[in-house]
Amino acid sequence: MSQRVAVPLPKAYLLLNHGPTVLVSSAHGGRRNVMAAAWNMALDFDPPKVAVVIDKATLTRELVEAAGEFVLNVPSREQAALTLAVGTQSGREIDKFSKVMRSGIPGDGAGATAASMVGAPLIEGCLAWLECRVIPEPPIQQSYDLFLGEVVAAWADPAVFSNGRWHFPDQQRRSIHYQAGGSFFATGDAFEV
Amino acid sequence: MSQRVAVPLPKAYLLLNHGPTVLVSSAHGGRRNVMAAAWNMALDFDPPKVAVVIDKATLTRELVEAAGEFVLNVPSREQAALTLAVGTQSGREIDKFSKVMRSGIPGDGAGATAASMVGAPLIEGCLAWLECRVIPEPPIQQSYDLFLGEVVAAWADPAVFSNGRWHFPDQQRRSIHYQAGGSFFATGDAFEV
Repeated sequence: MSQRVAVPLPKAYLLLNHGPTVLVSSAHGGRRNVMAAAWNMALDFDPPKVAVVIDKATLTRELVEAAGEFVLNVPSREQAALTLAVGTQSGREIDKFSKVMRSGIPGDGAGATAASMVGAPLIEGCLAWLECRVIPEPPIQQSYDLFLGEVVAAWADPAVFSNGRWHFPDQQRRSIHYQAGGSFFATGDAFEV
Repeated sequence: MSQRVAVPLPKAYLLLNHGPTVLVSSAHGGRRNVMAAAWNMALDFDPPKVAVVIDKATLTRELVEAAGEFVLNVPSREQAALTLAVGTQSGREIDKFSKVMRSGIPGDGAGATAASMVGAPLIEGCLAWLECRVIPEPPIQQSYDLFLGEVVAAWADPAVFSNGRWHFPDQQRRSIHYQAGGSFFATGDAFEV
C-alpha cells in the first residue's frame, strides 16, 4: 500500500499540471462512487482550484451536487484496468467499491480510505489525492457539466512526488493519460529544457 | 515541416484527451501572440468544446477577448524549449513571433500559418491544431480566467495522429506535459488494458 504525505496547498496544482487522467470519488447519504475523468485540469495556484467535467447521467454527478465535495485521485499505471472499469460502468447499476475495486483486477488498490476534509473517500493505491469542495457555479454546471472545486487538502505518495516534483523511478508506478477505448499512455521521460 | 490533415470534429477531443500542454495562439487588430497553457482540457465531444485558462495579465487574454477566437496548438518535444520560452515571456514586451520563434531555438517551428476558420495562426511544427471560437461566459472569464471554446476546425500531422488515435514512433516527435520550471514529461508508452 502506498504512503501518503501532505502536499502544501500552493503546490497542489503540480499534481495535475502534466495532465493525468484522474478518478473522481464522491459520497453522500450513505452512498459512494468513483468514476474516471480525463477531462480535468488545474485552475488556480493559491488557493488551489481545479476544474473537472462530470456528466449529468452519472451517479457521481448526483453525489457531488448533493455533497458539494469530491476527491481527484491520480491513479498509477497499475490501476489502468481499474480506471477503465470505473470509467465504463455506472454506479447506478453496480456498487463499484464491492464489484469492481475488489474484483481481482491487478493493482486495483482494493479499497478506499477516509479523507481528511471531505466526505468523499481516497482511493487506495493511487499516486496523489486532491480533496475538493465544489465552488458553486450552477449555470456552468448545468450548461457544460463543468465543476470547479477548491482544493482543501492534498496528498501524494512521497515515492513519486516530493518537493513539488513528480519522479517516476518505476515503469508501473507512474501516472496515466487516457486516450480512448482501452488505450492509455503512461507518463514518459522527464526532461529539462 | 509537418503535414496537416483535417480531423473530423467529433474526434477533435482526442487531440487533448491525454492532457498535453498546448500553445494558445491569438490575433486581433494586426497583433498576434502565442503563449503556453498546461491548464487546458476537452469539455465536450460533438460539437467539440474545450476549456483553457488565460491569465488576465497576458496579451493573449486581450487578443482572445477582442477577437473571440484562439487556436490550441499541440507542440512536440522538439518544441519544448519554444514552449517554455513563449510561456515565460510576455507578448507585451516582445514580439514572440520575431524574437522567440525565429531565435534559433531547436525545433522552433519557425513561424505561423493562416488557420482556416479563425484569425489566430497555426504554429508550424506542432502535432495538432484546434481552431476555436470563444463561447462567451463573461462571469467565469472574469472570476476564474477560464475560457470555453467551440472547436470549429481541427488538424493533425498524420505521422502522429490518424484514425482517431495518437501514435508516436519517434522519441522527439511526441506531445509534452509541462511540470514546472524547465521540466517536462514526454508522452510515454502506449498500452492497452
